[in-house]
Amino acid sequence: MNNNFYCVIMAGGDGSKFWPVSRNSKPKQFLDMLGVGRTFLQQTFDRFAQIVPKENILVVAFSSYRSLVKEQLPEVLDENILLEPYRRNTAPCIAYAAYKILMKNPVATMVVTPADHLITNESLFISTIGHALEYASQSGDLYTLGVEPTRPETAYGYIQMTLKDFKNINGHVVYNVKTFTEKPNMELAKVFIDSGEFLWNSGIFVWNVKTIIKEMGKWLPEVSTLFAQGEKSFYTDHEQEFVHMVYDDCPSVSIDYGVMEKTSKAWVFKVSFGWSDLGTWDSLYMHSPKDEKGNYVRCGEFMMDKVTGSIVVSTQKDKLIAIKGLDKFMIVNTPDVLMICPRDDIRFKNMITDLAINDKARFQ
Amino acid sequence: MNNNFYCVIMAGGDGSKFWPVSRNSKPKQFLDMLGVGRTFLQQTFDRFAQIVPKENILVVAFSSYRSLVKEQLPEVLDENILLEPYRRNTAPCIAYAAYKILMKNPVATMVVTPADHLITNESLFISTIGHALEYASQSGDLYTLGVEPTRPETAYGYIQMTLKDFKNINGHVVYNVKTFTEKPNMELAKVFIDSGEFLWNSGIFVWNVKTIIKEMGKWLPEVSTLFAQGEKSFYTDHEQEFVHMVYDDCPSVSIDYGVMEKTSKAWVFKVSFGWSDLGTWDSLYMHSPKDEKGNYVRCGEFMMDKVTGSIVVSTQKDKLIAIKGLDKFMIVNTPDVLMICPRDDIRFKNMITDLAINDKARFQ
Repeated sequence: MNNNFYCVIMAGGDGSKFWPVSRNSKPKQFLDMLGVGRTFLQQTFDRFAQIVPKENILVVAFSSYRSLVKEQLPEVLDENILLEPYRRNTAPCIAYAAYKILMKNPVATMVVTPADHLITNESLFISTIGHALEYASQSGDLYTLGVEPTRPETAYGYIQMTLKDFKNINGHVVYNVKTFTEKPNMELAKVFIDSGEFLWNSGIFVWNVKTIIKEMGKWLPEVSTLFAQGEKSFYTDHEQEFVHMVYDDCPSVSIDYGVMEKTSKAWVFKVSFGWSDLGTWDSLYMHSPKDEKGNYVRCGEFMMDKVTGSIVVSTQKDKLIAIKGLDKFMIVNTPDVLMICPRDDIRFKNMITDLAINDKARFQ
Repeated sequence: MNNNFYCVIMAGGDGSKFWPVSRNSKPKQFLDMLGVGRTFLQQTFDRFAQIVPKENILVVAFSSYRSLVKEQLPEVLDENILLEPYRRNTAPCIAYAAYKILMKNPVATMVVTPADHLITNESLFISTIGHALEYASQSGDLYTLGVEPTRPETAYGYIQMTLKDFKNINGHVVYNVKTFTEKPNMELAKVFIDSGEFLWNSGIFVWNVKTIIKEMGKWLPEVSTLFAQGEKSFYTDHEQEFVHMVYDDCPSVSIDYGVMEKTSKAWVFKVSFGWSDLGTWDSLYMHSPKDEKGNYVRCGEFMMDKVTGSIVVSTQKDKLIAIKGLDKFMIVNTPDVLMICPRDDIRFKNMITDLAINDKARFQ
């Protein structure tokens, strides 16, 4: 294993994705929604621990999640748990991690990844990341992974490639990045797919530390100059104080728009391993094992009759759940919320989630 | 108000009828399912307190319900709360009350009533009971009230009249009772209705105490001789001990089959006030006020969209209930049970209730 390879896991999600099961106090990345015995964060760690030394794995999280990270990933060094006092999108988070890694290892190459995605073809995933780390360590390229879309999905962001501007690195073709786009509506998503120019944005980036710091200095100096001053504070008792001060002044900006879209050095690996950001209950349903009636059931004692194609989740394991006569529904029960609606009704689910987020009572 | 009139409220129900909201520890009669601010027991008391002096109102209940009765009906005298150590159907309960009343007032006339029925035309009900009490006080007749059926209901017992054998008492026609029948199946229920001979069994009886005691001595001596020995124990510290002993030996038998069907002195008032025994969730739904979408909703904070014709009940008032897209469903949530099924699916509801009764864990 290459000791110059680092992994930065961004575990900043706020708990809205699987509300009411996920909460601001325990967001999706800290939950085992798939029932595999490991949370999303732990699965992400397990995956990257196969290519990056464990002591080189960093986790960046909102400060209140420190104990959750320590509890779920006891293997991660204390100095590798980076705590954000505010949520400022991905660029500040990446700058913080990059400058910290640089201090330890100026020739480091890093992969940045969300903490809560699903990867179903892990060996292909790992070999792709391994190659990208290898190439990034030997070049000034900024890599990102774009997943070949299989449907016009409106829940994902997209990466547009410049099809004519590609290069072949040891048999891997990478395309120059043209634009990053937010989640499109269905009409636009279809146009994207038909064009053949668009890939799903995986949120995974690979680069060597010196390159990303140089590029941030060029395109996001308002972020990078702040963290460049961290040398005296990183790895000391003053780190948290310093970070708090810096985040106070730091704009909220994504690395996609802040750097990747502006630089000419951004290249995208077109990949086709099984990937989902599991951003909705419905996508969780699609990717989870179901019983013979097509139900995804995660609860204690239950009794169901003529229930098909449904999600049934109760976090109250002592509660008897008795259901009859529902097709393609979602029934989610927690101590303070009961939600029952058609499985694919994202609008209703979002409305209820937003209500909870806004009045905060049921979001914590 | 006639001081010789007595009322015996039988409050022995076991909690299965509106399970999981009702429990063995708090059956239907002690609940305010209609949301009117008074429980069924309290409503029954209020109704009869208009024709019977409060100090003449007795409540017979399973012994563990003593504190519930006292809490809900503080006006009832301690000596008028009759506690049954076992459930033995209605005949022993009525014998117990009749002998106790006889000791206090040998010329008493009593009305016996279930504690948990719904009466919607109260003034008609009260005047009918008043007349029946009046007539019973002056005769040796045993009266019962039969409700003119409006549909072939399979959830009720029926009283068959002898249409040719009737008499007119001050303008009220009463028919001699031929048989009492258990709940019929639908086919039989339709035959009953078509025949014109059958009325719904209200479970309400009116007679003077001497008459019922005499008739029980004739038709149910195995019950009446036991309670006849109570004179030395009633109204003393030994009453409970005596009752326990007697109930040990007493058979379980209903007054309907034990006396009313056998005697020639049983007459039925054919009545047509609004009546329901509210024995099922569906009948509760039928008789309750609903919102403009036809929903019967009894819960705390809720958010509903495209929910119609449904029952939504949650005893957890702090829980947010969010539902979309259900028609004619029943959603009942308690701390330890969540039941979701088509509103009229009695079979499923009964199956789940029976499961709970059998394993007892969720019936208490």
